[in-house]
This record gives sequence, C-alpha cells and structure tokens, in this order.
Amino acid sequence: MSTIDYQYILTSIHDRMVHGAGPTAEDISSGHVAAYIPELASVEPDQFGMSLQCLDGSVHSAGHADVAFSVQSIAKVPALLLALTIDPDEVWERMDVEPSGNAFNSLFQLEYEQGIPRNPLINAGALVVCDILISALKRPLEELYAFVHALSGDPSISWNERVAQSERAASHRNAALVNLMKAFGNIHNEPDEVLDLYVRLCAMEMTCTQLACTFGLLANEGRTLHDGKALAPPVMVQRVNAVMQTCGFYDEAGEFAFRVGLPGKSGVGGGIVAIHPRYYSVAVWSPRLNERGNSHLGMRALELLTADIGHTIF
Amino acid sequence: MSTIDYQYILTSIHDRMVHGAGPTAEDISSGHVAAYIPELASVEPDQFGMSLQCLDGSVHSAGHADVAFSVQSIAKVPALLLALTIDPDEVWERMDVEPSGNAFNSLFQLEYEQGIPRNPLINAGALVVCDILISALKRPLEELYAFVHALSGDPSISWNERVAQSERAASHRNAALVNLMKAFGNIHNEPDEVLDLYVRLCAMEMTCTQLACTFGLLANEGRTLHDGKALAPPVMVQRVNAVMQTCGFYDEAGEFAFRVGLPGKSGVGGGIVAIHPRYYSVAVWSPRLNERGNSHLGMRALELLTADIGHTIF
Amino acid sequence: MSTIDYQYILTSIHDRMVHGAGPTAEDISSGHVAAYIPELASVEPDQFGMSLQCLDGSVHSAGHADVAFSVQSIAKVPALLLALTIDPDEVWERMDVEPSGNAFNSLFQLEYEQGIPRNPLINAGALVVCDILISALKRPLEELYAFVHALSGDPSISWNERVAQSERAASHRNAALVNLMKAFGNIHNEPDEVLDLYVRLCAMEMTCTQLACTFGLLANEGRTLHDGKALAPPVMVQRVNAVMQTCGFYDEAGEFAFRVGLPGKSGVGGGIVAIHPRYYSVAVWSPRLNERGNSHLGMRALELLTADIGHTIF
Amino acid sequence: MSTIDYQYILTSIHDRMVHGAGPTAEDISSGHVAAYIPELASVEPDQFGMSLQCLDGSVHSAGHADVAFSVQSIAKVPALLLALTIDPDEVWERMDVEPSGNAFNSLFQLEYEQGIPRNPLINAGALVVCDILISALKRPLEELYAFVHALSGDPSISWNERVAQSERAASHRNAALVNLMKAFGNIHNEPDEVLDLYVRLCAMEMTCTQLACTFGLLANEGRTLHDGKALAPPVMVQRVNAVMQTCGFYDEAGEFAFRVGLPGKSGVGGGIVAIHPRYYSVAVWSPRLNERGNSHLGMRALELLTADIGHTIF
Repeated sequence: MSTIDYQYILTSIHDRMVHGAGPTAEDISSGHVAAYIPELASVEPDQFGMSLQCLDGSVHSAGHADVAFSVQSIAKVPALLLALTIDPDEVWERMDVEPSGNAFNSLFQLEYEQGIPRNPLINAGALVVCDILISALKRPLEELYAFVHALSGDPSISWNERVAQSERAASHRNAALVNLMKAFGNIHNEPDEVLDLYVRLCAMEMTCTQLACTFGLLANEGRTLHDGKALAPPVMVQRVNAVMQTCGFYDEAGEFAFRVGLPGKSGVGGGIVAIHPRYYSVAVWSPRLNERGNSHLGMRALELLTADIGHTIF
Repeated sequence: MSTIDYQYILTSIHDRMVHGAGPTAEDISSGHVAAYIPELASVEPDQFGMSLQCLDGSVHSAGHADVAFSVQSIAKVPALLLALTIDPDEVWERMDVEPSGNAFNSLFQLEYEQGIPRNPLINAGALVVCDILISALKRPLEELYAFVHALSGDPSISWNERVAQSERAASHRNAALVNLMKAFGNIHNEPDEVLDLYVRLCAMEMTCTQLACTFGLLANEGRTLHDGKALAPPVMVQRVNAVMQTCGFYDEAGEFAFRVGLPGKSGVGGGIVAIHPRYYSVAVWSPRLNERGNSHLGMRALELLTADIGHTIF
Repeated sequence: MSTIDYQYILTSIHDRMVHGAGPTAEDISSGHVAAYIPELASVEPDQFGMSLQCLDGSVHSAGHADVAFSVQSIAKVPALLLALTIDPDEVWERMDVEPSGNAFNSLFQLEYEQGIPRNPLINAGALVVCDILISALKRPLEELYAFVHALSGDPSISWNERVAQSERAASHRNAALVNLMKAFGNIHNEPDEVLDLYVRLCAMEMTCTQLACTFGLLANEGRTLHDGKALAPPVMVQRVNAVMQTCGFYDEAGEFAFRVGLPGKSGVGGGIVAIHPRYYSVAVWSPRLNERGNSHLGMRALELLTADIGHTIF
Repeated sequence: MSTIDYQYILTSIHDRMVHGAGPTAEDISSGHVAAYIPELASVEPDQFGMSLQCLDGSVHSAGHADVAFSVQSIAKVPALLLALTIDPDEVWERMDVEPSGNAFNSLFQLEYEQGIPRNPLINAGALVVCDILISALKRPLEELYAFVHALSGDPSISWNERVAQSERAASHRNAALVNLMKAFGNIHNEPDEVLDLYVRLCAMEMTCTQLACTFGLLANEGRTLHDGKALAPPVMVQRVNAVMQTCGFYDEAGEFAFRVGLPGKSGVGGGIVAIHPRYYSVAVWSPRLNERGNSHLGMRALELLTADIGHTIF
C-alpha cells in the first residue's frame, strides 16, 4: 500500500461528493442536519471535509477539513481511552462490549440488562465512563481535555459551552438513562454531575484534521502521530478498535463493517472517524444525516475510500 | 509475520488446553456439551483439536484435528456464500447485516422487525438463505454439498442423517421462526421443506483440517487454498468476513472481536473457525460450551493464538 | 332494573347504528372487515344484529340477530369452560390469568414468559386449551361441539369447514406460537393436531340469538338459560367472567371495561358477547372492525346499551 | 345481601389471619415488608387491620383498623379523581386505560408507547396526573389534601414528610420515568417539581377506617359516605372502578379479579382497598408483601371476604 496516492483519492472523493461529478456522484443535499438543539440545527448543511493521516506523518485533506464542528458521540472514544488508562477492570465490570441492536439511547435494553450498558459507545455506556472519571479524577473536565490535548498535540481543542448548555436543557432522555442506572447502582455520583460532564464531553469541537490526528494512536499501536508517545498499550488499542467495529455506529455498525470495512465512530454533528490499523486514521465531516443518524456523505465517502484503496481490515 | 512458528504456537496452546500446563492453563472439564439432541450429548467431551492453514499452503495442526464433528451453525457461512454467488441482491433484500443483540434464535426481534432477520448468521437468517437456495436450485441439498466440496477440495464431506433427523424432531423453535417469517411473507417455500434443508445443512460433519481448508478462500480474497480457484469475488469475501465479525457469535460477537480480534463463526457442536485475512484460516474444536453457547476451550485457544502471534485485524 | 324496556333500547340502538338517526348516530361504513381469509373478507359488511336474553327467559333482538356469522375468538370461552370442567388445576398450571398488554398473537411476551400464555383468551392460551382437550378427550372435536350444544340447547351449531381450511392454510403465526410453546414443553400433542382443532373451534358459526343463549350460563351462576341445567359451578363462572373482563378484548380490554363496564369477549368476525351477571347476556354482531380488531359498531352498541340502562358491574 | 353479618365475617377473617385458626388459616409471617426506604422497612410486620363500610353508614372493623400506615400507591386514586374533576379530556389524552402487563414502573413499555402511560395507576401515569395538578392548581399539594379531606370527612389526614424525603432520595427510577416522558413532551412542568408532589402524594398516611371511608364514594355512585355530597358523577365513578379492576394491582390485576372479584388498589405499604359498587367499601392492611408487591394477608383476606359473602361483581 506504499504507492497509494491518498491525496488523489481524497480529492476525487471530494469532487464526487461536492460537485456531483463522476460515476459514483452523490447528492450533497440528501439527508437532514440534526435539529434537536438550535446550535446544531443552524450549521451550514452543505459542507464536506476530509483528512487522512498516515503513520509516516503525511497528512492529506480535502474540502472543509479545517472547519471546526461539534464531534458529539465521537468524543466518547477519548473518554473511554482515558478511563481505560485509569482502571480497565472498573470499566469492563460496569459495562459490556456487545453491540446493542437498538437505537443508541434505548432504555429498554438497559432495563432488561439491569443497568449494565451494552457497550461504552452508546449513551448509557458513555455516562458510566463519565461517572468513572468523576470518581477517579480531581478535576474531571480539565483532565479529560488535557488528555485530548496530549492525544492530538493541540492544546486549543475545547468545548462549545452554548452547545453544552443547550444539550443539558434538552437531555431528558439522558437524564432518564442516568437515573435508571442510578436505580440499579451503576452510577456512583449525582446524576446532575454526570450529565454536566457528559454534555461538555459531547460539545467538544474539532476540525477533521484535528480529529484524524487525535485518533491516530489507534492506527499506530498506541503511539500518537504527532510526537510518537505511547499513550496506550497495543492490546488496549486493539480492543478499542474492536469495540468501535462492533458498536461504533448505533444501529448501523454492521452496515459500516459491511460497506466500509474499518473500525470507526460517528457523531450526530456529522463527523465520522475511521481507523485502518497500521496504515492510517481518517476523519470526514458533512452535517446532513441519514435515517440512522450517521453522516450521509461521510458514510459514502468512507465507502468510496476503501473501495478506491482496495483494502479493508477484512 | 513470515517468521512466525505457527506449529510451535499450536502445540503450545494444545498443551495448555489439554494438559493444563503453563501460566495460562485451562481446565478442560469446564462447560457442558450441547444436550438438546442425543447425538450431540453423547460426544466424548474432553477432546480438543486445532488446524491452521496459511496462504502458502502450509498446514499446522494439534490434538484431535482429524476427528469429524458436527459443525452446526458454522455451515451457515458456506450456505450464505452459495446464495451470494446466486443472487446477492435477493439475499440483502430479505435480511439485514446488523448484530442481533439477543440470543441466536430470538423470536422477539424477528417479530419487532416484521420478519426480516437481523443478519444471515442467526437461525432466522440461515432459514431464509435455505429458502433462497430452494427457490433457485433444482436439487438444493446436492448442489449445496457440491459447493462445499469445491470450497474444500474434499468430496467426502457430508451430513449425518441421524443428527439431521434428531434436529428435525426437536426443531420446534426453528419451526416457530420459519412460520413467523412465512406469516410476514419472507419465506416463499413450504416451512417443512425449508426445515428439511436447514437441518441437513447444520448436520454437516467436518474435521478441523477440513474446516480450515473450506474457509480458506475467506483469507485468500476468494481463492480456495487447495486449488486456487476464484469461487467468490474479493469484495464479497470482505463483506462475509465483516458479517462474521459483527454477527458470528450469537450474543458474544463483541467479546470475540474484543478478545480474539478476528472474524469467525462458532457452532453448538463445539467448533469455531476464524480468519485472518491475507494470513491464515484457523479451525478449533472442543465440545464443551460456555454459558453463551460457544466452545469454552475454543474461545480460549483463539484468544491465546492472536495473543501469541501478537497480531489481530485491529 | 326490572322495569327496563330492553326491547325499546335495542331498537333504539339499532336505529342509531343502521339508520344513523339521533344524537349518537354512528356511521355504519366505518372500519374494515377482516380480510386475512377470503371467507371472512366476502361477508356483506353493512350488517348489524343484536340479541339480549334475561334470566327470566325473555329474548330481545334487533337487526340481523338471526344471521349466522363466524364467531372466531369468542369460541375460546366455551373451549375454556369445557377444559375447566375437566381439570381446572391443569388449566391454571399451564397458563396465567393476567392481561397481555400486547396484541393477541404476540410471540414476544410468550417467549419472555417461557411458553406460559398470559391468559386463556389470547391465541397462545386457547392453543394450550385445545392441547388439554386433545389429551383428555377421546373425540375432542365432537365432544367440544356437544358441549356447545348443551350450553345453547341448539344441536345445529357447527363449524364452517371452508373457513377452517382457509384459516389452517393461513395460520403461520399460530404455527409459530404452538411450536414455540412446544419448544418450552407446554404443548403435549403434535403441533399439527392442535392447530387442526383450533381452527375448527374458531370456525364455529352462530347467530346473535344463539350466541347470547350459549353464554347465558355466565349471567346465571352456571345454569343454562334454556333448560336451567347447572353446567358450571358459580365460582368458576365468576372467574371466567373476571378473565373476560381483564383479558377479553386483545389490547382494548381496559377500554371496554372503561366504556361498557361489563365482562365480554370479541371475535375478528365482528361478534361481541357481554355479560351482566345476574341480569342478562347480550350478543352483538357487525363485521367492520376498528383499529384494534374489535367490531366498530359492536363496541359502540354495547357502550350505548349500558349508558341507556344506566347500570354496569362497576 | 341485607342480612349478611359483615362484622362476624371480618372477625372470622381476622382470626384466621392472625391466630392461624380454622381450615383456611394463614401464616402471618409469610412475605416481606417493603425495604427500599428505612421508614417502611421499620414497620412492625405482624399487623393486620380491616374496615368495611356499607352504604347505610354501618362501619365494621377488625384488628389494627385504626393504626395509620403509608398508603403509597393507593393515593394515586384520589389524585386521579381530583384530576378528572378538573379536566377529564386532558387526563385521557395524556394516558391510556389499558393494563400494563409488566411491572408497575417499567420503562420499556413507556418507551415503546412514546411517553404515553398505559394507565393512571402505574407510576408513569400517576406522575402525569401530578403534572396535570401542578399545571391546573395554584397550590397543588394543599388542594390535593383538601380534596382528600372532603372525600373522607377527616381534615387530619396528612403525609409523612420523612417518608416523602426518603422516597425522594431513592426515586431514581421515577426520575427516569418522568425524564423519559419529558423527552416525549408528556410532562409540562419541571421533573423535580413533579417528583416533589408525587412523593408527598404517596407518603399519605391513613388508617383502614379512614381509607375505607375515603374510597366510599366509589361504592356510592359518587356520593361520600360521611355526608352524602356528590363529589363525582356516577359515570366517572364507574370508569375509575373499571380502571382499578383492570390496572389496580401491578402485574396481579388479573389474579385479583380472578380470586377476589372486586375493583381495588394496593400499595407497597401493605394496604389494599376494594369496592363492591352499591354495597360497600373495604380497606385491609398488613405490611408483609407477596412476590408481586401486594400485601400477602391483604390479598388472602379479601379473597376470603368475597368467598364468605358469596358475591362478587362477576
């Protein structure tokens, strides 16, 4: 794969997405922007950005790769990584690693399984991860963002407080989840405190370039792309990739494995990140979502990417 | 990975499994043999075999690698491959590719999703695959086994009719599944005819050596290991591997991805097959099952295998 | 209530239903006839009949009270009464008496509760009742109809074999239910045999006049209206009435208790029977069904009946 | 029924319950007191009281009929009556009248039915009733208790603030319910405000004598027993009785209809009230609960009551 012209492929995908050119042209106006809070609803919908970063340090990008957006559920992965560096046993005792087979915020399955989230990437699991961080850290919010700065090499990454406030005011379903888990004994801190951290986690803002770099260690056996520091052991990286593969796309995880063939994670802000272990980390962003809540163009772009490269993990 | 001594690793795993030697020794008497039909219940439980076959043609084995056993649900994969070579559109219109998040034969999810199986590897999906084969083929049973002979290069592979009869007599839950799908219009032939083919599919018998070879094309971009014939296009192979990864282990698919890190498929007879694309195909067999219905030692052996090799798809 | 002019009330309800006269006039063309088998689909839809029979032997009727129709699920009640006269312990060990809170033929709840039907009036429960009759009786079908003849005093009551055959050919969902219960051990005979009896039970045909008389013993402490014979002890009658009250209307049992205030049972053929213990038995029939599968005009007619009489069991 | 010696029957039931005398003697030490808050857990368990009040004003009692206890869910009925006198349309638009077929506080069904409670007597329904009272009343808590005083003729009835505080601190599952309904738009006020009223409703304390009198209007076509004032129209009374019949006992509503044959409502404090319309109101209390959360002796006592009287609504 050393002779692949990644930049050519990204530019070609960008053209097919944005200009509707070529045999696999896409309609950029398909799908709808997330509308449950005004800050997301008001995003200019017809944007598309992509950034791919190889282990050799090369960075390839196309379109709005340097426009910041709300990463939302994608931020659950760095939170999980931080919790795993603190206490992996605690994490895997309090949640499972199985795909959920239902929507991302279903109370049904959580009730059926007595307050144990199916995996760390559904809302219930990420709420428990936040609860673990609150118990373990003196200043959870600051230390969480410090960890993201270490992953990305970029201390400017932060959260949008207005998004966080809007999400907080609209987070009745997450409040239901956290209270149900509290009733089962799987939340140790106050529900309000957990929700406060959770919304500031999901309100994280990054560009595609920042996002691909932040996730780079998952392609690089635990070493960051920007300074090569080992922030996670290889076995932890393999396991987080495995969890993303089986659980990273709400009720479209199987479809993503089937069509794209890489582990990854999506967010309702229209971002998707995917990993080809030992090769590259790639981030794509386009705000319009398909029916299952994943970026319409983002899914298509990644499908074209692995088809053009001719190589998936499978 | 060219310098890996696979034979040494297999022998070492065998010793830890069977003789309980070494730091990761296992108790071969853990778990219970499937007991829902007498033919499976009467299998000598304390057996363990393993066969690993590389793309270069080398074959490595340990233990009872040449004892034939009932492959059961593992046979759903060749049936799926055959249906996909006939009409992939038909297959993916009549079933989904999402993990099920419930036990392998749950009626609940099937009812909730109006007769569309979550994926082709749960019983409901495999029953629809059988229905497709019956509609498309003149002599479905014979042509199905002829396809397995082409995959494996071994025309001696057949089914155990006594096992098939016992399963047929005990298959009330599968009868419930097929009738429910018939009520939803997703079974086109007679329920009895579908069940007749299904039980003869699941009663397929192979040794670990045969099984690893039969699945070899999934490691080899669609070419058989024994004669290099292209029996499936590479993209179909990638997709079948992806489906095995997310759906191949009932409610333990996430756990298998997490611990082993390879796509694979298990059967209630105690067999498991796993694929490292572009490297090897491996089959393991031990009749005692864990709580989730997968071979206890088989799961452990594959976990040790990728740990010893130090390499998964993630 | 001795001075109530029942005939006047029935005639008045009939006029409001059929001629659309008066302040509570109904549109007789609302709703749809059951269409899952041709024999039901071809019924002339705009018919309405009603028969009310008091303990003193008086019979009041209106409209098509003497047109025979397919009683369908209403027949589950005489089958239950017969099984209770044979072995009440067997009945209540193999099913519960709780409302189902789901559609009448849901597999979900049956699976969740391990093959034990919620009550004898959902399909699963009636299938177990048939299984009990098959185990206990030499000639189940003949003895079942002989029991109905004893209840009604009318030996001409029979079933429509064409309806039974059509139901049998279309009964995939019931086949799913009976096979699922067989898998759980709660069906003792062959699934086919149970389905054969069940469809001939549901294909029973009666007029409103016959139906009100057949159910008369439930208003009369167990004594038939036509010859005063005690065919069931009073406590059994109270319990069957209680079961009809909480479970007799699929997912509209609460609504029927709320609006009509009497125990009763409906069928997909458009019939409904209701009981005012110690006062009267009433049968109504009109083929068009509401969204929940109960007769649209039948529900309205019974609501008007108890409103006009000014008296319910509550 | 005019010649029935109610006092004799109550005394006889009391003896069989407390002294274990006679052929239907009960073991007063069966079952467990509710333990989820300390105030309930510390109740002396081996108490039993009963009060039956006829329409003619006669009051019959036995045992600890004048010991106050926490009525808990029984208080949902007066709250419903008050909401119905304010705006019945609002009530029945925001909840259904169907039995739930699941435990009293299930989130599953609430999620499946998009935030519409199955009925007003499960926790979700009572929370919506509280929300309606908050929207409609200036001083909801005071006006609610004033209504109870009017029903009972006893202005001393109040709530136990320590119980309310304990319930509030332990009410994570109710917080989950109210937040889920808020997410669906079926809660109009703040979740905390609704929970505050709800716990003070459930912390209501009464004796059996007070309770039987408070519910007397439901036996008396809407007129109170103590002063004959019409506080509810007869049709509303019939409907509330119907709802109690189908929904008053969590997942034991069918069993209660089957064994006792009267509409009623139970509470986790060990109280049960039942109504024989046009005859009497009866309250019974004993703190030990059966497996389904209803008073063990209370259920038995009411079963003996209607068996001894020989008369149910069925």
